[in-house]
Amino acid sequence: MPEPLSYRDAGVDRDAADRAKQRISALVDSTASDAVLSRVGAFGGLFRAPTGLRDGVLVASADGVGTKLKVAMVTGRHDTVGEDLVNHCVDDILVEGARPLFFLDYIGMGRLEEGTVEAVVSGVARGCRGNGCALLGGETAEMPDFYAPGEYDLAGFIVGMVENDERPGRHRVRAGDALIGVGSGGFHTNGYTLLRRLLFDRLGLGPDDPFPGMDASVADVLLRVHRSYLDSVGPRIADGRVQALAHITGGGIPGNLSRVLPEGVDARVERRSWEAPPEFRAVMEQGVDEEEMLRTFNMGVGMVLITRPVDADAVVADLQADGETAWLLGSVENGNGGVVLV
Amino acid sequence: MPEPLSYRDAGVDRDAADRAKQRISALVDSTASDAVLSRVGAFGGLFRAPTGLRDGVLVASADGVGTKLKVAMVTGRHDTVGEDLVNHCVDDILVEGARPLFFLDYIGMGRLEEGTVEAVVSGVARGCRGNGCALLGGETAEMPDFYAPGEYDLAGFIVGMVENDERPGRHRVRAGDALIGVGSGGFHTNGYTLLRRLLFDRLGLGPDDPFPGMDASVADVLLRVHRSYLDSVGPRIADGRVQALAHITGGGIPGNLSRVLPEGVDARVERRSWEAPPEFRAVMEQGVDEEEMLRTFNMGVGMVLITRPVDADAVVADLQADGETAWLLGSVENGNGGVVLV
Repeated sequence: MPEPLSYRDAGVDRDAADRAKQRISALVDSTASDAVLSRVGAFGGLFRAPTGLRDGVLVASADGVGTKLKVAMVTGRHDTVGEDLVNHCVDDILVEGARPLFFLDYIGMGRLEEGTVEAVVSGVARGCRGNGCALLGGETAEMPDFYAPGEYDLAGFIVGMVENDERPGRHRVRAGDALIGVGSGGFHTNGYTLLRRLLFDRLGLGPDDPFPGMDASVADVLLRVHRSYLDSVGPRIADGRVQALAHITGGGIPGNLSRVLPEGVDARVERRSWEAPPEFRAVMEQGVDEEEMLRTFNMGVGMVLITRPVDADAVVADLQADGETAWLLGSVENGNGGVVLV
Repeated sequence: MPEPLSYRDAGVDRDAADRAKQRISALVDSTASDAVLSRVGAFGGLFRAPTGLRDGVLVASADGVGTKLKVAMVTGRHDTVGEDLVNHCVDDILVEGARPLFFLDYIGMGRLEEGTVEAVVSGVARGCRGNGCALLGGETAEMPDFYAPGEYDLAGFIVGMVENDERPGRHRVRAGDALIGVGSGGFHTNGYTLLRRLLFDRLGLGPDDPFPGMDASVADVLLRVHRSYLDSVGPRIADGRVQALAHITGGGIPGNLSRVLPEGVDARVERRSWEAPPEFRAVMEQGVDEEEMLRTFNMGVGMVLITRPVDADAVVADLQADGETAWLLGSVENGNGGVVLV
């Protein structure tokens, strides 16, 4: 008779998983609304569908945090990447005009580390509360041999809703429209593989060293949270003045703004209408050329809104009144669907 | 001036990502219905909300495939794990009575391997088509330093819908009810860390060796696809005869059936009402004791349905007529919320 083999011998600790589930259940509850009909541990999360819409459209998006996670691991600060993830997803569906309903997360790790899971989920829950979004469920998978000790991957899924005939989008964009830039909160969640190569490998910096040319540490600058634009941009979509918008993520302004341009127009972005914030300038000075910067980073522009020219000044003023950095970034012109930086 | 550094130098190949997106777009289209209003590449997937429900509830679930992925990697067969993932998610929300609307996937990998991504997504798309579910979006994240070459993680997210007052669940279960077992298709997606330790490490078998005591290879047995019960079990939920059900995943029958038991009752499972299929018996013979087996594997029982005693025989007969292996597994008795194997 061979030596008995248990699931725990094989590297999976079911009791730790049960304890982690207990600890995150209060975090999940902190995000719940009356629409949530299920509890932690159900096979599926239950969310009462919004009523009263004429022609409601569900808008869904899946995303990750990318290698910004590595910065969380190097610094041991795991409680903000979840908020990055939620805000990123909220901003993606905001582009379709949707307000978030609920969110689910997936955490894969080698051996379940209860403290890390709790910290990650605390960030997810904070992000959900900040966006009025229920954390409806999630999965924490213990996968020995997949992840090195202390490492994990994190993915998020969001569902929101919008009235079909109120959706912004490329179908509403036309030549003559104005482009409005809305300031980002730093690198958000894009370009981190390049940033880590540059800062940690090439420059040999540690997380507590000053970020080149700045007063803040490398860790503080790299971990600044991806912003949500729901509260400031959402009302300008709802009142019909935003015809289309682009969330500036991987691919930068050219890669994302082009996604909402109809045929027959160009977006003309005035490069001199704003100055890239110091963290971006510092990266450029270390040897990333400007074109590569613009294709990789948001360069200080978290969202681009497209409005009729007559609405542009008022939308900028409203955003500024809400505390945003906002400015006229350029215009939509006759062309062939490209983004032209001038 | 330092040597210029590009995103590609840092290990991220944007062109490969664009090509992979092209290749999966036909797969995504193969799952679309009239309800899908968006195309691949949108910021968010758009799905027209079902109408005509009195009190519709959205049901969502997130899941992974666990270390079954490692078997896909060892064998180079990446085109079935996506189907495992979809079916697992479909079965999870079926427990709440929901029919699937749409699905999103997340693939994290070190360096984007186009052929692997395409194979994985082909399985996801097949699973979606098989369940009448739209593949509404997804994210493929290239994360150097996180995943070893050839490795990846895969997570899925599903949303379905059910009429609130037609939901099965523990609120409808009472003493005297019957338990019905529905056969699984093998290990599904649970217990793979233990299986790999046993088969590959302890027994030193390779994927092409015969599975102990069986005619099929280790790879064929381990990669058999997690079954969907939507077509056979769904109609019995819709006609009101299934009061509650449990999807038997990690934790086995005790860990999952207990999730749908109200206070004051036990589930009495007749261990002699079925024989575990040969792959489970072979694992047990190699040194995993029966209690551990029952807590780790489905042991041949993919779903447990709870019906009124008067409905049990007819539901079993209907399931058998649909090609299922189905039998009376036990009963619900007065007790204290436990699963008793007798």
